[in-house]
Order: sequence, then structure tokens, then C-alpha cells
Amino acid sequence: MSETVTIIGLGVMGSALVFPLSKNGVRIRIAGTPFDSEVIDECIRTGRNPKLSRPFPEGISFHQFEDWKDLIPGSDFVIGGISSYGAEWFLEEVMMHIPVEIPVMTVVKGLRVNEDGSLSTWPQYWEKRMAEKGIDRKVYMLGGPGIAQDIIDGEHTVTTISGEDPDVLQMIKDCLETDRLHVSRTHDVTGLQYAVAIKNAYALGPAIAIGLGHRKEAERPTGVNAQAAVFFQAAREMRRILRTVGAESDCISMGLADLFVTVEGGRTRSFGILLGEGLSMEEAKTRLKGITLESISAVRSLYDSISILAAKGFETAYGKVDLAEFPLIEHLYGVLFQGKDAEFPWEKFSFDLS
Amino acid sequence: MSETVTIIGLGVMGSALVFPLSKNGVRIRIAGTPFDSEVIDECIRTGRNPKLSRPFPEGISFHQFEDWKDLIPGSDFVIGGISSYGAEWFLEEVMMHIPVEIPVMTVVKGLRVNEDGSLSTWPQYWEKRMAEKGIDRKVYMLGGPGIAQDIIDGEHTVTTISGEDPDVLQMIKDCLETDRLHVSRTHDVTGLQYAVAIKNAYALGPAIAIGLGHRKEAERPTGVNAQAAVFFQAAREMRRILRTVGAESDCISMGLADLFVTVEGGRTRSFGILLGEGLSMEEAKTRLKGITLESISAVRSLYDSISILAAKGFETAYGKVDLAEFPLIEHLYGVLFQGKDAEFPWEKFSFDLS
Repeated sequence: MSETVTIIGLGVMGSALVFPLSKNGVRIRIAGTPFDSEVIDECIRTGRNPKLSRPFPEGISFHQFEDWKDLIPGSDFVIGGISSYGAEWFLEEVMMHIPVEIPVMTVVKGLRVNEDGSLSTWPQYWEKRMAEKGIDRKVYMLGGPGIAQDIIDGEHTVTTISGEDPDVLQMIKDCLETDRLHVSRTHDVTGLQYAVAIKNAYALGPAIAIGLGHRKEAERPTGVNAQAAVFFQAAREMRRILRTVGAESDCISMGLADLFVTVEGGRTRSFGILLGEGLSMEEAKTRLKGITLESISAVRSLYDSISILAAKGFETAYGKVDLAEFPLIEHLYGVLFQGKDAEFPWEKFSFDLS
Repeated sequence: MSETVTIIGLGVMGSALVFPLSKNGVRIRIAGTPFDSEVIDECIRTGRNPKLSRPFPEGISFHQFEDWKDLIPGSDFVIGGISSYGAEWFLEEVMMHIPVEIPVMTVVKGLRVNEDGSLSTWPQYWEKRMAEKGIDRKVYMLGGPGIAQDIIDGEHTVTTISGEDPDVLQMIKDCLETDRLHVSRTHDVTGLQYAVAIKNAYALGPAIAIGLGHRKEAERPTGVNAQAAVFFQAAREMRRILRTVGAESDCISMGLADLFVTVEGGRTRSFGILLGEGLSMEEAKTRLKGITLESISAVRSLYDSISILAAKGFETAYGKVDLAEFPLIEHLYGVLFQGKDAEFPWEKFSFDLS
């Protein structure tokens, strides 16, 4: 392949994409953010990102943040390898300064509560902010049910790129798709973003159920029914939110598979288990020091938004927003921010004749 | 409670319901099927069903099949504790002979292919057959994401009872609901039945992905992305089928949670893992001797029905039935019945701009 890609930010998912890109012969340049300067030094010296389990493939050029602008000319697209904590920074310091004819794709997952209580995805917020400055850029986003480590290890993974221009989507897909990474294309940026963002909140639920099981004198390994009961409630609330924002059916399925994989393994699972065992949010964060926990901001964003919209009597296509229809997110908020015990309000995880 | 329940058939799920019923003080009588006579002898002698990990609670009366009719008068409802392999028998030998004023609820999960290729749930088929004989009975069904062992152990579990009469649903709910078993009510018998039946087919998918991982020289534990990729495709196909039969949103969520719990633990998981490791259906069945595998008939029913309907150009509310939209069920059919290798057609587990 003759394509050239510049990656800015050495987050785990951005770093993982290097492996399929390299397999496809894409030319890769990596610039760290200002917070990555030691990691970049290490990469230049050893070819390794110390956060990853294996060295990068050969032939990649590494650069400090100061040099990032020099990498942009000649790039077919730019990948923002940042988390939601870097989203504002990435907009101001990077994206606004890239010529609009060069597409930008990011791996950010997260939601932002606007002043009126509504939520924005990062692409919605970014595009609005850029439009205010006269920049007409549509952002491309990657999201799907996969942990970075498995992509690095060449496990079969499905993922989706979303955005406006079908040709750009195809170009990015051609760069990323391998015999192990299976890439879908969609125009449903909002639906996909909601799906992959809210699952970070909801995956805490089944993980807490595992932790609750550890409190018991264990006659046998923790049962699966309790996890499934919370998974049911998580799926209900996720589907309610995703239908409200008009998500495509396939993006809803991506979100539910992402819920599954996040319960199966990864940071949110570890965090939820500790909460279920009885640790407070702060204690669990301390125990998992250094790990980015998107789930915390996802719970806060969802809870804040639903509360504000419910208080305003906001109407959706499916009726008035009602916090009572989201008992799981209400409980997760209570556990994280109000010191509530992690034991669930199980009786609320049911429905009655409609 | 003053209610009396008669359970006919000592299947695992029917037996498990004894525990919440007994906790609620419901009077319980159990009759075996003709195939259960040795188990009933054992229950009479020791108070244990040898298939279960713990003895039944005190105060239950056990009876051989010959005596079942004597138990019916005075029963508030009857539970059919049978699997789909006993469904035809239960209709002919039992249900048709129960006075229609006594409600019958069963725990059967499964689908039946009609001659025109369409599928029936067992309640649809039973009710039609009874109507032909002038019997006007609506059947009540129980289904949800829970394994029997966890109900026996008092793990938190959500489940749903479906049927026509709200008062009967409430009476059954009152008998079953405990502080651990959380019972929803729905009129959507068909949606719930499809959900809990087809998950037995689809749960084989992620389980096979686990088994495929065992074939590799394992540098690290099997990744979760491959399971999630198959979970995604399973969720897509399940949602497509469930929307086509008009399933309620909450029943779809029950089905997806049931997919989750069936992948997490139970018979279908063990079977799928063996298939993924490379065993044929017959070899895997031999290895799991004595275990009822609803997944085999679920795959066959779904594949047969989709094939026949597609060949006829059958139209649904969502367009013509097309086998190409069900690559996972096609693959599972190939693995079970055509000797195909278990490695998935991964590239089909994606979608493109709609």
C-alpha cells in the first residue's frame, strides 16, 4: 500500500492500530502528545511502547509533539489516539490546525453533557466548535467491541468506522482491514458513538455482580444468573437510549457486543469487581492506579443528562424522559458518587404488562 | 400461601422452580413422566433428585406418572417441567386432559418447523392442536436468562412469565417471586418464546470461538475479541428474527441477556467449546453423554425455516427472507450437520453503508 498515516497520541487503542496498518504496508508516523514525551523517547530508543506487551513492528518513525505539524503534509489521514480526557486538548491544539482536506479519525469514546442537559458525542461537539471558527470538518470515528491487546495479538476483531464521505471511509477501511480485523462502514456516527460510550457505564453493572458474589462464603463459584440479570437491565437501558438517538440496528448490536466484551475483560471489569466487593470509587481507583476509567465519566454524563432532562420534562420520540426507567444508571451513580452500597435494587430489574 | 401447584416432569428447570415455590409456602406435588420412574422412586426414598446438587425442601409429595390425574383437582396451576423433546408427548398425554379452568405453564424452549417452512413456538402449535379438538386453552410459559442451578442456589435471577390472562399471570408471579427470583409479566408469548429458543442456537457461536482459541499454541489466555465478534453477529441475527416476529423490546433484551448467560455457563457452552476444538457433533455429544442439547434442534429449526422461506421468496415487514443475512446460523448448521470446520467466515460478520 502507498498510504501514509500519522498517529497523534500513544493511547493504547491508537497504538494497537499500528499493527494492522503495518501488516497492510501502510507508512506510519507517530507523534506523542506533550504528556507522552518519555514514552516517545523510549520508542525512539527501543521501538517499544512500554504500555504494550510487544514491540512495534519495524519501519515506524517516532516524533516528539513539537514536530507533529511537519508530519501532516503527505498524510492520507490522521489518527487521534487519545481518550476522552484528551478530547478538548486534541480539538484545540491539533485538529483545528490540520488542513481540512486531510481526514481525521479518532478512537475517543465518551459523551459530553451540554448546559441544557442534552448530551453530545465528541464528533458533534468538535464539529460545532470548528464550524464556529469557520472550519468545515466532519470527523471520522472508530468504535467496536474489541480490547486493544487482542488487536495487537491478531485476534479476530470486528470494528466500525463512521463518518460522512464513503470514499474516505473506504480508504480508511482499506488501510485497517486485515484477515483478523474486520471493518464495517457506517454513516451513523452518533449511534455508534453513543453505543461505544454508554457501554463503558453499563458494563460496570455485571462486573459489580461478580464482585458482590465474592462477598459470600463461597460454596461454589459465583453464579452467572446475577450477572445476566444486570446484563438484561443494562441491555434495556442501552437500547432505550440508542433508539432515542436514532441509532442504526447494526450499531445497537455493536454496542451490545461491546457491553459483552467489556464485561468479559478489561479495565472496567476490574473496577466493577472491586466496587462489588465493597470498595469505594476512590479506593478502587487507588487500587487500579494509572488506569484510565472511562466508565466513571460515562456514568456521570448519563446520570446528569437524564436527571436534567427529566427535571425539564423533556420529550423524546418514546415519551418523556423518566429517571425511573434507568434504575441501573441511577444505582451506578449512587455507588460511585454517593457512597451507596453496591447491592442492586434487583426488584427494579423487571417489567410488567405493557 | 394457600396455593397448590402440580409439577409434571422432573427436568432440571422444573425441579429448580420447586425451591422458590417452597420458599413462598406453596403446596407442591410432583409427578414424574413415564421416563422418570426411577428418579421418582429415589425422590420418594430420599427427597433428592439425583440430577440436582441438593435435596428438595421438606413437605413435597412425589408420585409416579400413573397417578398424575389424581393430583390435578385442587391445583391452582400445573407446571410442565419438560424439554422440547417431550413437548409433543406433554400435549397428547397430559395437557389435553387437564380441565381448561386450571392454567398450565411450561418451561419448554424450542421452535417447530411447519410444513410451509414457517416456525411455530410450542404454545402456538399446542394451542392450534387443542383448538382443532375443541379445547380452548391458552398456555403460560416461563423464560429468561437463568440457569437452573443458580435458581436452586438462590442467586438473583430475572425471569418472565408470558400468557393471556393478567390475573393468572399475577397468581403465578405471586407463587414464584422471592427476594431472589424477580419475575416480569408479558402478553408477548411469541416474542419471549422466540427469544429464549433461538439463543440456544446462537450461544454456540461465542462458545465455538473459545474452543477455536484452544487450538492455538497459547501464548496467553484466549482473547475476548473473537467471542465478541461472534456475539455481535449473534445479536444482529437474533434482533433481525425477533423484530420480524414483532417481539417486545423487553423480550428482546431478555433474549440478549439469555444469550450472555448461555455463553457464560451451561451445557451449550461446553458443547460449543468442544466443536471449536475440532470435535464433530457426534463426538461432542458422546463426550457430553446424557445432556439435553436444545441447541442442536434450535440450529436445525432456524436453518431449515430460513432456507425454505428464502427459497419461496417469502416477504417479511423487513423485506425478503435471505439466507445471506444469517451467515452465523448457516455456519453453525454446516458445522453440526455437514462436517464443516468450525473456523468462522469472519469476513461476513460486518456491515456496510445502508
